[in-house]
Amino acid sequence: MNAEAKKSSNSFTIMNELVLPNDTNVFGNLMGGRLMYWMDIAAGIAAGKHCNAPSMTASVDNISFKTPIKLGNVVHIEAKVCRAFTTSMEIHLKVWGEDLLHQYKYESNEAYFTFVALDPNGKPREVPPLIPETEDEIRLYEGALRRRQIRLILAGKMKPDDALELKALFNL
Amino acid sequence: MNAEAKKSSNSFTIMNELVLPNDTNVFGNLMGGRLMYWMDIAAGIAAGKHCNAPSMTASVDNISFKTPIKLGNVVHIEAKVCRAFTTSMEIHLKVWGEDLLHQYKYESNEAYFTFVALDPNGKPREVPPLIPETEDEIRLYEGALRRRQIRLILAGKMKPDDALELKALFNL
Amino acid sequence: MNAEAKKSSNSFTIMNELVLPNDTNVFGNLMGGRLMYWMDIAAGIAAGKHCNAPSMTASVDNISFKTPIKLGNVVHIEAKVCRAFTTSMEIHLKVWGEDLLHQYKYESNEAYFTFVALDPNGKPREVPPLIPETEDEIRLYEGALRRRQIRLILAGKMKPDDALELKALFNL
Amino acid sequence: MNAEAKKSSNSFTIMNELVLPNDTNVFGNLMGGRLMYWMDIAAGIAAGKHCNAPSMTASVDNISFKTPIKLGNVVHIEAKVCRAFTTSMEIHLKVWGEDLLHQYKYESNEAYFTFVALDPNGKPREVPPLIPETEDEIRLYEGALRRRQIRLILAGKMKPDDALELKALFNL
Amino acid sequence: MNAEAKKSSNSFTIMNELVLPNDTNVFGNLMGGRLMYWMDIAAGIAAGKHCNAPSMTASVDNISFKTPIKLGNVVHIEAKVCRAFTTSMEIHLKVWGEDLLHQYKYESNEAYFTFVALDPNGKPREVPPLIPETEDEIRLYEGALRRRQIRLILAGKMKPDDALELKALFNL
Amino acid sequence: MNAEAKKSSNSFTIMNELVLPNDTNVFGNLMGGRLMYWMDIAAGIAAGKHCNAPSMTASVDNISFKTPIKLGNVVHIEAKVCRAFTTSMEIHLKVWGEDLLHQYKYESNEAYFTFVALDPNGKPREVPPLIPETEDEIRLYEGALRRRQIRLILAGKMKPDDALELKALFNL
Repeated sequence: MNAEAKKSSNSFTIMNELVLPNDTNVFGNLMGGRLMYWMDIAAGIAAGKHCNAPSMTASVDNISFKTPIKLGNVVHIEAKVCRAFTTSMEIHLKVWGEDLLHQYKYESNEAYFTFVALDPNGKPREVPPLIPETEDEIRLYEGALRRRQIRLILAGKMKPDDALELKALFNL
Repeated sequence: MNAEAKKSSNSFTIMNELVLPNDTNVFGNLMGGRLMYWMDIAAGIAAGKHCNAPSMTASVDNISFKTPIKLGNVVHIEAKVCRAFTTSMEIHLKVWGEDLLHQYKYESNEAYFTFVALDPNGKPREVPPLIPETEDEIRLYEGALRRRQIRLILAGKMKPDDALELKALFNL
Repeated sequence: MNAEAKKSSNSFTIMNELVLPNDTNVFGNLMGGRLMYWMDIAAGIAAGKHCNAPSMTASVDNISFKTPIKLGNVVHIEAKVCRAFTTSMEIHLKVWGEDLLHQYKYESNEAYFTFVALDPNGKPREVPPLIPETEDEIRLYEGALRRRQIRLILAGKMKPDDALELKALFNL
Repeated sequence: MNAEAKKSSNSFTIMNELVLPNDTNVFGNLMGGRLMYWMDIAAGIAAGKHCNAPSMTASVDNISFKTPIKLGNVVHIEAKVCRAFTTSMEIHLKVWGEDLLHQYKYESNEAYFTFVALDPNGKPREVPPLIPETEDEIRLYEGALRRRQIRLILAGKMKPDDALELKALFNL
Repeated sequence: MNAEAKKSSNSFTIMNELVLPNDTNVFGNLMGGRLMYWMDIAAGIAAGKHCNAPSMTASVDNISFKTPIKLGNVVHIEAKVCRAFTTSMEIHLKVWGEDLLHQYKYESNEAYFTFVALDPNGKPREVPPLIPETEDEIRLYEGALRRRQIRLILAGKMKPDDALELKALFNL
Repeated sequence: MNAEAKKSSNSFTIMNELVLPNDTNVFGNLMGGRLMYWMDIAAGIAAGKHCNAPSMTASVDNISFKTPIKLGNVVHIEAKVCRAFTTSMEIHLKVWGEDLLHQYKYESNEAYFTFVALDPNGKPREVPPLIPETEDEIRLYEGALRRRQIRLILAGKMKPDDALELKALFNL
C-alpha cells in the first residue's frame, strides 16, 4: 500500500447515546456489555477513518468501569487512533456519563481497542503510519509499544524477558 | 425558573452511528424512519443540554432526504439548539453520510425539531433564553420566528394573515 | 411504465404496535423518533401497495405531536397514498394512541410522507396515477399540490412567487 | 366484574410488519420465532380490547407454518377474540405474507392463542362474555370448546374420557 | 443422503438469557412471544446439530405457559431432537425460570417444535435417523408418532380414524 | 454476610446464540462489540449464581479475538466463577464459534470479567468464598491473584513493586 501517514486527529470520533431501559440492569445502571458494544462501534469508525478499509476488532485491553452510568443519562464516547502498526491500529477511547438534569459529567472508563485492516479477501492489509501531534497524542503513541507487549505476552506470543518496554514499567 | 441565558454552542451534540443491515431497505440504503429515530435522540440530547430538564418532541419540520446513506457507511449527526421560546426549544440538525473507504462525506439532510421542557408533573416549564454567537447561529436564530409561524399555521393555531415574518418569505 | 391508475383505498394500510419500555422516555411516553420509525414503515408499505416497486422516503412534512402515547398503550397508524406524481407518492398518515384499559382512543398526530419509486438500478421510475374516491380522499388529493409547493420552496427548488397554490393559503 | 358482553368484531386487530434482514434465516425467510413474537403482540392487543385489563399469554395452540415469508415482504396479521371463558380468552389469528412487487398475497398460518386477564395483583379476573355475529365468528366460537379440551388434555388437566366435544372429532 | 444415524444427545443445546425490561409486559413478566422467539432459536440450533444443514420451523405444538418468568430472572432453555422423520425433526424443549437472588428455579413450559431440513435450493432434504438412548429419550421418541398424528389431523392432512397412535390416547 | 463457600461448578453457565445479520460487519463476521455484549450477560448470570445478589461489571481483562465467527454460525459461551474476593468475583469465559453445516467448532477467545456484588443500596457486599475442585479450576483459581495485580497496576491502584505474584511472570 505504501500509504501516506495520517494525523491522529484525523480519526477523532465522537458518539453520544442515551441510556434506555433495555440497556440497564436492575439498579438502572448501564450494563457493561452494552457499553462495550457502543465502544466497539466508535472504535471501528475511528479505525475506518484512519485506514479507509474495512477493519475488525482484534483485541480489547483491560477495561475498568469506574462510575456506573444511570438510566436516562447520556453516554459520551471519544475515540482516536493512537498508533498504527503494520496492519493494525490501536484506538484510545474515553467514556463519560452525563447527567443533563444536574449538569454533571463524570468519567466512566478509558480503554484501548486494537483493530486490524482487511483487504477484499479478508486478509490483513497495511495501514498508513500515524503522526501524533499534541502532547497527549504523543504520550498515547509512546505508551502503545508497552501496551502491545502486554497483549503479546498475555496472548502467549512474546516471552516476558523480551518485553523491554514493559520491563520499564517495573523499573528494572 | 428565571434561568440564565445560555449560548447556542453549549448544546452542541455530535452523534456517529454505523448503518447496519437491519437499518436498510432492499437497496441497502438507510431507511428514513431509522434515521429520524437517531435524529430525535440527538435533538433530545441537545435540548437536555440547554434546559437541564426532561423534554420531549413537540414537532418536526419538513425534512427532505437528499442522498441515501449506504449500508456500512457512517451517519454523522450534528445538533444544536438554535432558539428558545418560553417553554420550547428549536433544535437544528445537520446529517451527513460518510463512506470511510472512499473518504467521501455527503450531505443527507437538514432538519428542525422542536422540543418542550417538562416539570416533574409532565407540564411545560420555562427554559433559559438562548444567545446565538456565530454568524451561522444568528441566522438560525432569526429564521426561527418564521419557521415557528409556519408550524403554527400548519397546526391551525395561527391565521396566515397574522404571520408577519412568514409573509416576508413571499415578498409581500 | 404507463401504468393503470389505482384507487386510494388500494394502498390503505393499518398498523398496530404496543409501546414497550425501550420505546419511552423518562416520563413513560413514546419517543417521537420511535413513532416516526413506525410511521415510515407504514408509509413504505402503503407506497409499495400503490406502485408495486421498491420505494424510499424522499421527504417528511411538518409533524406536530399532540398527545403523548403512554407506555403499555397501543399505537394505531393508518396510512394511504393520497396523490401520485410522476415518480413519487404522497402518503397521508393518521396516528392514534389507545389506552385499552380505559377504552380511550386519542389522536396523536397526522403527517404526510413522500416516497419515490425506484427501478432495479435505484433510479426513479414512474408510478401509477391515483384516483381518489371518497370526499376525504378528494380533499387530500387536492391539498397535495399545495403541500408539494411548500416542500419545493422549503427545499429551495421553487420561488415563492411561482407557488400559485400556496398563495391561496394566504388569500392573495 | 359482571361485565357486559362484547361482540367479536370489537377486538378485531390488524398488524402489518416489514420483514427486515435480522428477522430472517440464511435463506432470507422470516424465522418462526420472530413471527410468533409479532403474533403474540397482535393477540395481546385483541385480548386487551375485549377485556380492558392487562392480560398475558396462557397458551398457544399448534401452529403449522405453510409458506415461508420472504425478506422485504409484508407480514399481515389479523387477530380477533373468538370465545371468552371465565377469566380467559381464545384469540384466533390469521397470517399472510404479501409480496408487494408482484401483488401476491399468500397464507402463512392460522393460530389460536389463549390469554388470561389479570387484576392489579396479578390474579386472574373475570372477562366479559363474547357474542359472535358472522357465520365465521360462530364457527370459531363453537370450535373453541373442542380446542379447549385438547389444551386441557395436553396439559394433563382433563381425562380424555371426559372430553365429550373432542370425542366428536373422532366420530365416537 | 443416506446419512448415518445420530444420538439424541448429539443435538443437546442449552441457552441462558436474561429477562430485560423490553421483554416484559406491564406486570414485569416475560412476554410469551419473546420466549417463543428464544425457543425457536434454541430449537433451530438443536436441529442444525442433528442434520448439519439449514433448517426452518415447520410447526410448533401446543405450548402452555405455567409460571410467568420475572424481569431480571434468567430463562434457561434445553433443547434436543427427539425423533427424526424423513426430512423433518421433532425437537423437545424444556424451559425454566431462575431467580438467582432466591436460588429458586421453576418450570415455565415444555414444547415440541418441528423443523424441516433444506437443500441449497430450499427444498426439503433427508435428515439422519435418530437413536434415543436414555429412558427419557426413548419415551420422547415413542411419543413423537402420536404427536405427529395430532399435527397431521390438526393440519387437515390425516383423518382422525387413521390416527392409530392417537386413538390409544383415548383408550379406544 | 458470612456466607458458606460455594463450588466453582455451581456457577457454570452455558449460552448459545445464533449470529444474525445485524450482528455482523461487511465481511459477515460477528462484531466484537456484539460478542462482548453476550459475554457480559453470560458472566453476569454466572456471577449471580455464585453470590445470589445483584452484581455489575467492574472490569474486563484483555480479550484477544482469534477466529472470526461467521453469519449463521452459533456462538457457544461457557462462563464460570474462578475466584471470589471480598466483594468481587472473577469469571472465566471461553467462547467458540460453531459451523453446524460443516460440524466444525473453533475457538474464538477466552476472557476474564470481574463483577462486584451489590446490596439493595447499590453498595458492594460480601460474596461467598469459592472452592475450586478440578485441576482446571485450581489453575484458574491460582492465576486469579496474578491477574488481579495486573488489574490493580493498570488501574493505578497498586505499585508494580508490590505485585509479587505478577513479578513471578517475569521470573524475577
